[in-house]
Amino acid sequence: MSGTTLDDYTDRYAARIHGMAQSEIRALFAVASRPEVVSLAGGNPDTSALSMPELSEMFTRLLTDHGPQAMLYCPGQGDTRLREEICEVMAITGIGADAGVSPDDVVITAGAQQGLSLLATVFLDPGDIVLAEGPTYVGALGVFQAAQAQVRHVAMDEGGLIPAALEEALAECEKPPKFLYTVPTYQNPTGVTLSEERRLAVLDICRRHDLLIVEDDPYGMLSFDAEQPLPLRARERDGVFYLGTFSKTFAAGLRVGWVLAPPAVRDKLVLASEAQILCPSALTQAAVTQYLTTMPWRQQVKVFCTLYQERRDTMLASLADTMPADMTWTEPGGGLFVWANLPAGLDSKAMLPQALAERVAYVPGTGFYADGSGRGQMRLNFSFPSSERIREGVRRLAGVIDSAARLRDTFGA
Amino acid sequence: MSGTTLDDYTDRYAARIHGMAQSEIRALFAVASRPEVVSLAGGNPDTSALSMPELSEMFTRLLTDHGPQAMLYCPGQGDTRLREEICEVMAITGIGADAGVSPDDVVITAGAQQGLSLLATVFLDPGDIVLAEGPTYVGALGVFQAAQAQVRHVAMDEGGLIPAALEEALAECEKPPKFLYTVPTYQNPTGVTLSEERRLAVLDICRRHDLLIVEDDPYGMLSFDAEQPLPLRARERDGVFYLGTFSKTFAAGLRVGWVLAPPAVRDKLVLASEAQILCPSALTQAAVTQYLTTMPWRQQVKVFCTLYQERRDTMLASLADTMPADMTWTEPGGGLFVWANLPAGLDSKAMLPQALAERVAYVPGTGFYADGSGRGQMRLNFSFPSSERIREGVRRLAGVIDSAARLRDTFGA
Repeated sequence: MSGTTLDDYTDRYAARIHGMAQSEIRALFAVASRPEVVSLAGGNPDTSALSMPELSEMFTRLLTDHGPQAMLYCPGQGDTRLREEICEVMAITGIGADAGVSPDDVVITAGAQQGLSLLATVFLDPGDIVLAEGPTYVGALGVFQAAQAQVRHVAMDEGGLIPAALEEALAECEKPPKFLYTVPTYQNPTGVTLSEERRLAVLDICRRHDLLIVEDDPYGMLSFDAEQPLPLRARERDGVFYLGTFSKTFAAGLRVGWVLAPPAVRDKLVLASEAQILCPSALTQAAVTQYLTTMPWRQQVKVFCTLYQERRDTMLASLADTMPADMTWTEPGGGLFVWANLPAGLDSKAMLPQALAERVAYVPGTGFYADGSGRGQMRLNFSFPSSERIREGVRRLAGVIDSAARLRDTFGA
Repeated sequence: MSGTTLDDYTDRYAARIHGMAQSEIRALFAVASRPEVVSLAGGNPDTSALSMPELSEMFTRLLTDHGPQAMLYCPGQGDTRLREEICEVMAITGIGADAGVSPDDVVITAGAQQGLSLLATVFLDPGDIVLAEGPTYVGALGVFQAAQAQVRHVAMDEGGLIPAALEEALAECEKPPKFLYTVPTYQNPTGVTLSEERRLAVLDICRRHDLLIVEDDPYGMLSFDAEQPLPLRARERDGVFYLGTFSKTFAAGLRVGWVLAPPAVRDKLVLASEAQILCPSALTQAAVTQYLTTMPWRQQVKVFCTLYQERRDTMLASLADTMPADMTWTEPGGGLFVWANLPAGLDSKAMLPQALAERVAYVPGTGFYADGSGRGQMRLNFSFPSSERIREGVRRLAGVIDSAARLRDTFGA
């Protein structure tokens, strides 16, 4: 973005604006998308794996059968037919009729991002506390900033959120937190999954402390090695709000997600959504309904999984081949991301200009914390670049890290 | 919506939730859309006037040429190409290069509704004052409610907002209002247009009082009888934020609108939008770009105008034929709506159940005021129902009004 640095409106802004800052990821968007840069910074699915001729036929069917309707406003809660189909999708992940789910409880949103923003609108006053994994999804931090909430991070390791750390965070809160925001499966940014045992422990802690849970599950269906873990919402119907999306199982460019919430909260989410966007796009909702009802979509998800698994393998092998012995990284069982810990004394944020000069991009770990942590970490994406580009990107990155380590050895951290 | 009336979450909601209530229009949605009801309550364009075979071909072209990209995330500000095209569209309405407009200043939103919601996010703290026409767009009231702002209505007549009433409203404010929200052309709900002379007067008052203007212009291109009036933003570049949309010139189901704002504000709008929805739909943006660059879209807008003009004529003639002598209504030069003043002592809100029983729907005037005014008024839509349905709907409505007038004469108001 260009423009003047003078701001005639400074005295007029709402208080919330002063706490809002551009995320590290969005700031990278322009430079990282240059063709000569291998971007390991994105979070895009590989939509070239979709068949455009088949999608063209699908859109022709859609417009022929439902065109005028798909071009109109729809109810703020979203299309009834799609809400029914979403219940079928959730049933596959284990959130079925016995988990007390009905299409009435689904609110369709402009991506899961809007679902989270609506929950913040409904629950968060300025100064409220939210608990979240450390690190956590960068877009969630943006929502909590805009809501003027305080984020307290809960430590995690290879098994996900650490239950004892959650107890500790709760004990340290000067007032009850409004909710725990968590991505328990193939987390963004770490790729880590909350273990079976810890899922039970976390639910137990939240029940005892009367703490609501916002479960964000964009990656659950992108399972490589094992069965998708059972979502928290499948085990506990009270006090767990579930966020879903078609961004990774179909296409992010449609902006179709949903929130599953009990009736009283659902009504408020709908009001909040109408104030934000009036209603979600009838056209993209109709496209998702067509996709779910007339296309072999579960086969398509398998295609994505196979592709991403291969690329994850490439990334892990390339990291093992090229990185120094004192660097570590996660080994995700699904999703889009690897989280890497740099050798001691290296700073991912300070190192980024050099990396871009070497034509490789990543997201510095600081983007995923509200408190400035994360300088020793970085997020690497393996879903979008080809295996060849991943190998080349990791090779370039290893060179940058090697240079930084030498500088550190010469001049100190 | 169904569900329990018990609400386990009452103690947890944010303060803003207590001021948010379902709009009169959204509450009507379900019953008014039954096929046996002639709905004069909606605000839908007539999308059956679009050629679905041509749109199917357009989508096939789009997916063939740009499919994978259209299925991905895009920058939060929106697609660059579409922002350029939007500047061309604004130039047609008189907001051109000499009004200091560049694609950099355009933020693409999920409909103009999101644009207004973003402006509220950037400017409104709880308790802030907003000025708006009385009556005003119901969706704007939803935004201001959610922002916990106070709405002060400014009186209008057949010539639009009354400048003296604006001066008066300003004098009565105990602190400077954050902005004036106005729909100067073919206003929703009245169909009224701010006269040429008053445009200059309103701009002059706002300049003198250092009052920002949010100009919402969804209907400007739907001109029947005369040239589209020059938007306020075309005359004044400082302090006027302009909201545009493709909901009426193409299709509401795409949810593509925009805000035109100076750079400092634009950056904040983008941050706020990223927190709400991450980015607008790349697919529906690509569809609008295709529509603007490969389809005879100005011809299509003329088709809409011809259709709506015919229906407006039908509505005005039917009202003249059937309504009592002490009822009045506006005669809009464009847009979608007629605003009617009931005979003295009649109450549009109280009369609605009877109207629905007689299979005709309208929106009671109370939906368009923040202060409970509007019981003597109603909004009637002529863009969506056919001329035949309009005649039948107005006939049914005249019967309902006649019954209500008899009741009033018998029992008093």
